[in-house]
Amino acid sequence: MRIRRLAGRVVGVGRRESSLLKAMDAGAVDITTTDLREGVRDADLVVLATPVDSFGALATRLAGCVRDGALVTEVGSTKEAVIEAVGGAMKARGDVVFIPTHPMAGSEKRGPENASPDLFEGAICIFTPLPGTPPDAVERLRRLWEALGADVRFMDPLAHDRLVARISHLPHLTAAALVNTVETGEADYAGGGLVDTTRVASGDPALWRAICESNARSIVEAIDAYAAVLAGARELITGGDFEALEQWLSEAKEKRDGFLAMRSREEN
Amino acid sequence: MRIRRLAGRVVGVGRRESSLLKAMDAGAVDITTTDLREGVRDADLVVLATPVDSFGALATRLAGCVRDGALVTEVGSTKEAVIEAVGGAMKARGDVVFIPTHPMAGSEKRGPENASPDLFEGAICIFTPLPGTPPDAVERLRRLWEALGADVRFMDPLAHDRLVARISHLPHLTAAALVNTVETGEADYAGGGLVDTTRVASGDPALWRAICESNARSIVEAIDAYAAVLAGARELITGGDFEALEQWLSEAKEKRDGFLAMRSREEN
Repeated sequence: MRIRRLAGRVVGVGRRESSLLKAMDAGAVDITTTDLREGVRDADLVVLATPVDSFGALATRLAGCVRDGALVTEVGSTKEAVIEAVGGAMKARGDVVFIPTHPMAGSEKRGPENASPDLFEGAICIFTPLPGTPPDAVERLRRLWEALGADVRFMDPLAHDRLVARISHLPHLTAAALVNTVETGEADYAGGGLVDTTRVASGDPALWRAICESNARSIVEAIDAYAAVLAGARELITGGDFEALEQWLSEAKEKRDGFLAMRSREEN
Repeated sequence: MRIRRLAGRVVGVGRRESSLLKAMDAGAVDITTTDLREGVRDADLVVLATPVDSFGALATRLAGCVRDGALVTEVGSTKEAVIEAVGGAMKARGDVVFIPTHPMAGSEKRGPENASPDLFEGAICIFTPLPGTPPDAVERLRRLWEALGADVRFMDPLAHDRLVARISHLPHLTAAALVNTVETGEADYAGGGLVDTTRVASGDPALWRAICESNARSIVEAIDAYAAVLAGARELITGGDFEALEQWLSEAKEKRDGFLAMRSREEN
């Protein structure tokens, strides 16, 4: 936003001075502070970008200091639980508009030192506005994301959570399950297939624990759908129907080859 | 073998003239033929390297024409079924020694045009010799593989099949199941995580069908072990034990980070 001149002033609010210094070095912020009240005092827009399990406490503090008429948004990986936590805390502030969003971009490189003005160029940003949100506020935030290069899509919070459970959270859990099935000594014999298939399992356990906690219902649904698909393949093998198994493998190959046309950006 | 001068003469036997021509162009063979009988007539060593489901018929024909005292080996992905098929066909030829092997190397690039004299450099080659195999024949074949740069390990055929079921066949099936759980439209929203996790699902369905058919019992065992691990994680989520889930995720991360030290070669 700052480098694209989309904000008069960008204030970086954080807990660690070291992170704020890095954000300053990266040119991502004009000024920084570790004091939330001071940081948001004059803000027209407040963007929450901490792990999802800290949103509730943060929003409660924010409700006590954000200015009248401000627009509050967040960029967390799940929506129903976040809306309950942040929306609940914000209810006391009828003059503040809250719009939940999820930009489907990012990378394994974390921290302000990896900030990029082009991170969202070509990425999808999902909006899950609450009923009764003033349309002009939604439009204002949409224009901001579009100015950052994002493709804005609207979705119901539950539909969002089910979607990311399948395309992001499930692949993480299946990769971790695969690693936990293989013995360490056995992995010495393995090649690129196992390495690629399990890459995401190297992600931050605390972050993923928070995501699982925040999206438990949809993740369990996704696991059940996946387990049924795998059980179907198992049945074809035990039943000796290898003709049908080849069909099942072909369906997967065709769909997977189609994935290659997808955006190459990372989504955590 | 030819480029490392480990054989007096390498004869390429195949069905398609076009493939044999490519093998000749790659410098992998001295002469070629589409006639099995002619190709193996003077061979001291015969290496079967076709898909595993063709080994039985091939070995039956081979038993009728391989010369006395020859050493027959194969490089298939599974062992118990291959030993039954090839070993069974070779029983009529008490003068011929059969040694099953599995070099854990290869790549998605198929065909003689991708032949490389260094393919097996640093790779593990698993030997699963039958009881009663003359030790000097095993030693001769081991020295050949070592001259190709491979690290030879001995294993029971069933132990081999269980190992590759977990480290190679299971990751293929879990990737295919993941693809078949996600809707094509949903994949448009996904990023690198899903793409990496499902890469192996783009493999050849006919080849993988043959592998599944050939290693059905061990693959079903591997699916069951994996399904139990995933069900365990599901139970932690439904039970709300996110402390234990974080432990489970940490265990996976630590093990997976250890995989990175592994050989980067591909295993199909």
